[in-house]
This record gives sequence, structure tokens and C-alpha cells, in this order.
Amino acid sequence: MSETQAAFDRKTKPRGSLGALEDVAVRIGALRGEAIPPVPRCALVVVAADHGVAAEGVSAYPQEVTAQMVANFAAGGAAINVLAREADARLVVVDAGVGAPTASIAHGPAMTRAAAEEHLAAGQAVAAEFAADGIGLIGIGEMGIGNTTAAAALCARLLDVEPAAVCGRGTGLDDAGVARKVGVVARALAVNDVDRGDPLGVLAALGGFEIARLVGVVLGCFAARVPVVLDGFITGSAALLAARIEPRSVAAMIASHRSPEPGHALALEALGLEPLLDLRLRLGEGSGAALALPIVRSALALLNEMASFDEAGVTDAGR
Amino acid sequence: MSETQAAFDRKTKPRGSLGALEDVAVRIGALRGEAIPPVPRCALVVVAADHGVAAEGVSAYPQEVTAQMVANFAAGGAAINVLAREADARLVVVDAGVGAPTASIAHGPAMTRAAAEEHLAAGQAVAAEFAADGIGLIGIGEMGIGNTTAAAALCARLLDVEPAAVCGRGTGLDDAGVARKVGVVARALAVNDVDRGDPLGVLAALGGFEIARLVGVVLGCFAARVPVVLDGFITGSAALLAARIEPRSVAAMIASHRSPEPGHALALEALGLEPLLDLRLRLGEGSGAALALPIVRSALALLNEMASFDEAGVTDAGR
Repeated sequence: MSETQAAFDRKTKPRGSLGALEDVAVRIGALRGEAIPPVPRCALVVVAADHGVAAEGVSAYPQEVTAQMVANFAAGGAAINVLAREADARLVVVDAGVGAPTASIAHGPAMTRAAAEEHLAAGQAVAAEFAADGIGLIGIGEMGIGNTTAAAALCARLLDVEPAAVCGRGTGLDDAGVARKVGVVARALAVNDVDRGDPLGVLAALGGFEIARLVGVVLGCFAARVPVVLDGFITGSAALLAARIEPRSVAAMIASHRSPEPGHALALEALGLEPLLDLRLRLGEGSGAALALPIVRSALALLNEMASFDEAGVTDAGR
Repeated sequence: MSETQAAFDRKTKPRGSLGALEDVAVRIGALRGEAIPPVPRCALVVVAADHGVAAEGVSAYPQEVTAQMVANFAAGGAAINVLAREADARLVVVDAGVGAPTASIAHGPAMTRAAAEEHLAAGQAVAAEFAADGIGLIGIGEMGIGNTTAAAALCARLLDVEPAAVCGRGTGLDDAGVARKVGVVARALAVNDVDRGDPLGVLAALGGFEIARLVGVVLGCFAARVPVVLDGFITGSAALLAARIEPRSVAAMIASHRSPEPGHALALEALGLEPLLDLRLRLGEGSGAALALPIVRSALALLNEMASFDEAGVTDAGR
């Protein structure tokens, strides 16, 4: 048994009665190599970028909405602004290519391998900077019209499943829209014949600038031993890429919620992660991650602040 | 469509993409009779009492632990103290009979009908006081060694199911302990032959002082149009009694989580409530309610603070 679990078992509560809260604290203790990790300060990193594949009509919204929503983030009017305030988390919005889209994955690779490497390194630097600044828990999110199509293509290739198994309604496609999206993903997989054993190649061929940046944030969090709270399908595809690049990085990942996008459940299953929330969220922006931050922080607060049976003079029947 | 839903649909997000958060805000709007209920100040009411049935060996913990845990609440060392701080909620602990247990339901009624009425009225007064003080969201919890046995007896009678369908491990019974508990509940139902059409009679016969008080808090919340966040199996049994006394009171109830106690899922199903969390919590004390408060508050913050498509200049494809 871990020292974190042993510490929880001395607290004034029946053994294991805090369920998933105990499990998440134990995982963070193992990641950080300390029995009782302190209650962390939190940040949210939301990365935005445009996708050439948006031109294929795979989203209910036009591409201009990416830039409009980044302006909305800056003005404080988006869901993630409200949720970051409620979670007492610092919110940082990163422009990884708004108005400067990737090439359409339906016709060739999204970006060069060198571009993927640059974005990945930039993401690692963001995580390292936060860690150096004393941030102990990072949630991630994204904005990018068309990016559930990129995430679907990435997951289809990495998990070796059919496009139909990973294509959902995104921001609100109808049945015909989903069928078109399945066709676009099938074409993307056909024209980008990159091996799933080459995750950086898969990222460059089928990903997006914000996804590459998020892969870097996840890897940077693992390197700095900072737990990273995933959001929905797009951050899940980034996490899957991070896990293929560095399998040990899964130890840093916390799944916040399960979105209705069918590929998200497959990605979480492949990562072996059980989400904390199931609220039928399908917004992105890091909204699910933001809602999970107080739960993760509460798990560590319980570990740090609860009295033990001995301290409180409570009879421990489970001893 | 409700005015609350219409207000959400003008916000800068795809329609319905905030899932259960939109649903809970819509329910609160309907309860309060206002399209955009303000972001509420929160309180947690934890009611403690002892149970004569504890003498039948139905708990892993001795009866003295109820009083010890109330002292732990007062000293600030229990889980609910930590979670109330994290949720920014005022915590009030009510002694409804600690050290002065009910009669054992295995041998006759737990309390007189008059006692049940008194506790119920006292609970209503607590809710009214909070509402008058400007509290807009109340979570409820309990402490009482043996009280999952009382909750099981209440649910078995109200839902007309077998004792085995509603008896779980409580704070940590082994298989033999659960079997003993099933036998005790069967005896309680046999010796207390009260009709399920008389919910106050059922409460007096099979309930507990904290449960009676909590029925009052729930009814008082409904009367004051203050949403009340339920916790686990015991508060669920109190909610079920409240619903049998005043069916419209379900409109005030928000289910925080689903505990592993088998009777809890049945109670929630009978109430038609879908819980926000499923974290395998089985502590009680209001711990699940406390964890759900920030989620409910976030739902209302989103409704109050997000920009609309028009305000933010974002293209609304769903219009």
C-alpha cells in the first residue's frame, strides 16, 4: 500500500469511503513522490488554433468562430472564464495558430514534422514555466473549429478503429454532417499513410497546432511531476499522443469527464483513465477540466487537513 | 422552453453543450420562479443523532462514535469541515439526539408521532432561517451510527421492496454483518406494521431523529424555494419521506452523488433524480453534497456571467 493510502486510512472516516477522491490523491502522491502532496494552486491552459479541414464542412460553426471565441476569452465572457473564476484557477489562453490554419488533413499532412516538434516543445515550456511558478495542478482545454475531426482522425489511426467509431456531432452536426465527417476522416487516413508506431508522424499528419501544443503541455507536466487534468475529446487525443511518445506520462493524467463524443470514451479506455465527472459536457475550452479542479484539490485538502483517529479521539473500528 | 433555457441558448456555446449544468440551472429557475437565479451563497446542514438499533450490531462502529464525530466536527477535523471550506459553504452541525438514541426499530417504533412532528418542524425552521439569512443553496448531511439500517427500513417500506434490496455494507460491514442487518430490517418491518400511505407514521416507526429533522429541512427548503442538495442514502431516505408528505418538494431537490448503498439508487430512481457525481463516496456527513455545491454554483455563474452571441460578436450557427 502507498504511504498516501496509509495516511488516508488513519483519517477519521471508514477505510476507502472517499472512493475516487482517495484514488486520485494516491495517484498524485505517486507522481510527485511524496506521501502528502500539498493543496495545489491551479491553472488552466487553453490553446486555440485553426484547422484547414474546417473548409470541408465538418463543423456546425464557420472557421471565423475560433478567432471570435479567443476574443471572447480575452474579454472574459466565455464559459471557461466563468469556470476558471469559480475554480480559483489562473487562466492562460495560448494562440497556436488562430487565423493561420493547418493544411487540410483531407488532402495531405496538417503540418511538417518540424512544426509539430516546435509546437510540442513550446507546450513543454509552458508546463515548465507554470511548475517553476509553483502551480501544482494544471487543467487543459482547447478552441479550434474543426478540431473534433482532427481528434477523430488521430484516434482512428492510433487506436486502429474505423472513422465511424470516433466521429460524433462535435458542436452540433446533424446526421448528414456526421456522415460527411466520417468521409473526411476516411480520406484523411487514406492520404496520410503514416504508421501508428510513429506518434510524432501521426501528430504532424493528422493533428492540429493546438493539439501539438497540448501534447507538449502534457509531456511537460509529466516531466515536472505536475498532475494534468484533461478535458474532452481533443485533449484526450493529445493525451493519447503523449502516452504513445512517453508511456509513463499517463501517471500525470487525470480524466475530468467523459464527453458524448464516441472517440473520447475509447481514448480514455486506452489510457486506462476513469473520469471524475459525467455531466454530458460537450463544450471543450477546458470546461470539464475546470469543473474537476475543485474535486482534485478537495481530495488533497482532505489528505492534508483531516484529523486522524488518534488526533480526534475517535474509535477506529477498522484498525 | 423555459426562460432559463432560452437565456442559456443565447450564451456563446453550442446549444445544450453544458449538459447537466444547464439542466440543474433550469430546475432552479423553475423552483425560484425567476429566469436567471443569482449565484447563491451556500450552507451545509449536518444533523447528528443516535439510534437504538445500533445495539443490534448493525454497524462496524460502536455507538459512541456518533458523539466522537460530532466533537470532531466542532474541532474542524472531519471530512465535512475540509469540504465545507473548499466549497466556501457555511457549515452548521445540529444535534438532534446524540447520546439520546431512538428506541430500537427492531422492537417497536423509533419515536412517537409527536416527536417526529417536532423534529420535522425544527428542521423546517432551520431551512427558513437560512433562507431569511440570504442562503440560496443548502446541502444536507448526517451522522448517526446505525442510520443506514434506519434508512434501509424506511426505503424498504416506502418502496415496497425486500430488505436485502436496500441493505449495504454501510461503514464497512462484512457479509455476515450485512446478513444480520437484513434480518434486523426484516424484524423492524414486521414489528412496525405501519402503512406506507402514512409517511409521518413510517418516519416515526422506522426513522431516526436526524432523519426526521432532515425531512423538515427538505420541506422547509421547498417552502422557501431554496434548492437543497442531497447527499447519500440517509438523506435520500429523508428526501423520499419529504416527497411522500409533499410530492411537489421534489422540485427543490438536487442529487449530488450515487453511493454504493443499493437502496440509494432505488431512492433516487423513485424520486426521478439523476446525480451529478458518481465518485464511489460512502462517508455521509454531507460529503457528496459539499462536493456538488461548486458544480451547482458554477451552473448558475455560467447563466449569470457568460456573454451572449450578440454581446460577444460571435457567429451563432445554431440560431
